[in-house]
Amino acid sequence: MNAEKLRKIYEKAGADALFLECDFLRRYLTGFYATDGFVVLTQKECAFFADPRYFEAAEKVLKGTNIHVFAGAWKEAKEYAETFRTWGVPYPFTSMKQAGAYQKAGHTLVDCMPALEEAMIVKSEGELALIQAACGIAEQALSSLLPELKEGMEEREAAALLEYKMRGLGAEGTSFETIVAFGENGSVPHYETGARKLKFGDPVLIDFGCKVEGYCSDCTRTFLYGDDKAHEEFKKIYEHVLSAHLLALENIQEGMTGREADAIARGYLEGKGLGKYFTHSLGHGVGLQIHEAPFVAPRSEAVLKDGMVFSDEPGVYMAGKLGIRIEDTLYMEGGRAHSFMKGSKQLLIL
Amino acid sequence: MNAEKLRKIYEKAGADALFLECDFLRRYLTGFYATDGFVVLTQKECAFFADPRYFEAAEKVLKGTNIHVFAGAWKEAKEYAETFRTWGVPYPFTSMKQAGAYQKAGHTLVDCMPALEEAMIVKSEGELALIQAACGIAEQALSSLLPELKEGMEEREAAALLEYKMRGLGAEGTSFETIVAFGENGSVPHYETGARKLKFGDPVLIDFGCKVEGYCSDCTRTFLYGDDKAHEEFKKIYEHVLSAHLLALENIQEGMTGREADAIARGYLEGKGLGKYFTHSLGHGVGLQIHEAPFVAPRSEAVLKDGMVFSDEPGVYMAGKLGIRIEDTLYMEGGRAHSFMKGSKQLLIL
Repeated sequence: MNAEKLRKIYEKAGADALFLECDFLRRYLTGFYATDGFVVLTQKECAFFADPRYFEAAEKVLKGTNIHVFAGAWKEAKEYAETFRTWGVPYPFTSMKQAGAYQKAGHTLVDCMPALEEAMIVKSEGELALIQAACGIAEQALSSLLPELKEGMEEREAAALLEYKMRGLGAEGTSFETIVAFGENGSVPHYETGARKLKFGDPVLIDFGCKVEGYCSDCTRTFLYGDDKAHEEFKKIYEHVLSAHLLALENIQEGMTGREADAIARGYLEGKGLGKYFTHSLGHGVGLQIHEAPFVAPRSEAVLKDGMVFSDEPGVYMAGKLGIRIEDTLYMEGGRAHSFMKGSKQLLIL
Repeated sequence: MNAEKLRKIYEKAGADALFLECDFLRRYLTGFYATDGFVVLTQKECAFFADPRYFEAAEKVLKGTNIHVFAGAWKEAKEYAETFRTWGVPYPFTSMKQAGAYQKAGHTLVDCMPALEEAMIVKSEGELALIQAACGIAEQALSSLLPELKEGMEEREAAALLEYKMRGLGAEGTSFETIVAFGENGSVPHYETGARKLKFGDPVLIDFGCKVEGYCSDCTRTFLYGDDKAHEEFKKIYEHVLSAHLLALENIQEGMTGREADAIARGYLEGKGLGKYFTHSLGHGVGLQIHEAPFVAPRSEAVLKDGMVFSDEPGVYMAGKLGIRIEDTLYMEGGRAHSFMKGSKQLLIL
């Protein structure tokens, strides 16, 4: 990370030093991934304490950057940071057990998460490229899955196959538990993929994503597995959900709040009498975390601007009957929203 | 969970009520899995606050158990628990942000993790059956992977294929990031699976596991992909690691400490001049967490007894040269250790 960004985080945090052991925050500051380690950010430098297992790799990767790599773990990091009285630690990602150890070492704690969030909410070009890669893999894996869906296949088989395809295309893993919902199961917004078998005429809802160097993608597609001619209402509602999705994509502008962006899709669905079936918010930020700022929701005052990344996922759920959600991961550039996803979102009938 | 076990946890915790929002701990107490929810355990009852998304499913699954299901989230759970002054919360799994909200609601906090750990360290028959299932799937998936390993295949392809096979056999997912290390990469104890391609004559180290209803398996196998006759030392050391593994399996007894159990394998490897290459502990508990109590390590005073589950994983690592680890998940029954794994551990040459 560049010196300017590090300095801003340090200054905004208002602590003598930031002390971080949470993996994705270490990755954010250093650009290096390891399952263990400690980062200490002071006014002078950004120090990374890498466990002996990772020290060699960390030194190699971080050579020439402004990250100073030391061999060590808790003991070494604590000693390095002991003269800094106030430690900034991320309250949502610091356990009471860790906090107890920091306080026992004589430090006063303040929450540095707001400072980190302020930086993380605007993605660099490098970060955008990784999210683009994660979105590309997700789309390509889904395209390759579709011809392999067969009657009698269980939801979890389809999920496993999709995940395998994403791994094969270079993803590190999924960005959350893949949702595959056949038939009426689509009406549960956060359905847990199960053993329901695919039947001719079933609606299929797939909500999935993968990670590339820690950065997530998030995508939902809803389609029909064969048209048994019993889906007039489904098709009508699909068009409305798609319109809501596209309206948001086309009309979100820099300077809008999350609330205003949410209202574009929500207002449209309300106008069609579908507002009460849209039971969640329009979107959430996507980055090293699958859910992060900015939130695109009825009560969000986050102001959208270039470099931000968030999902656009209107949905309509009629319990036990139907569920339709269409989701892309979007990014802001030139004052407008653009999608990382390239494929058609017209209703697909397999 | 039976009333007696709940009562013991409650009493040991020494709080007016336990207040839990950590997913695997909710699952442990209620036997029900959901991504969100709150459990409040009082002297009188165990209450589970299920989000409207899960309420119906939770009611159905928990009917007739001693878990009382309520619809609601943070607000409802907080109101239910507001007359209880001291809340027991698990310090390692409670963030400072959560703690702040609890304290703001007027509660004094104590750590209930020791009480939970004391209960969780001894598995019930139902829990043992789930770990057995997770171990069986892992073994079966590996057997089915072996004939598909081919020269030129990348480590990450092999990992993705193994994970796909575990999913296909009914696993919910992996219990940790699958390690596949080809050739010299095996000498890094916690290697990150990468793009190294398989060559004839390579040693292969695979450390992997899956989850069934939240319960984990953990297994490592090391073998040769073709014998290029350059592996005399490898074969000799393999036999020593296997002997260390089997000695522990055969000689661990109820009443031993983790330290004494670790010393069985460590003492043997030291006798062969390999002690300095065995750079980690012999094992760790396995359950809803992949690493939990009891720890089988040089400084562990945990006393082993029936119902405990832990790994037996001696290893020898010579940097840049070779790495061999052989790991089963074991359980204690009738005063002795038994393996959940059934297959042969003799050196396999594909």
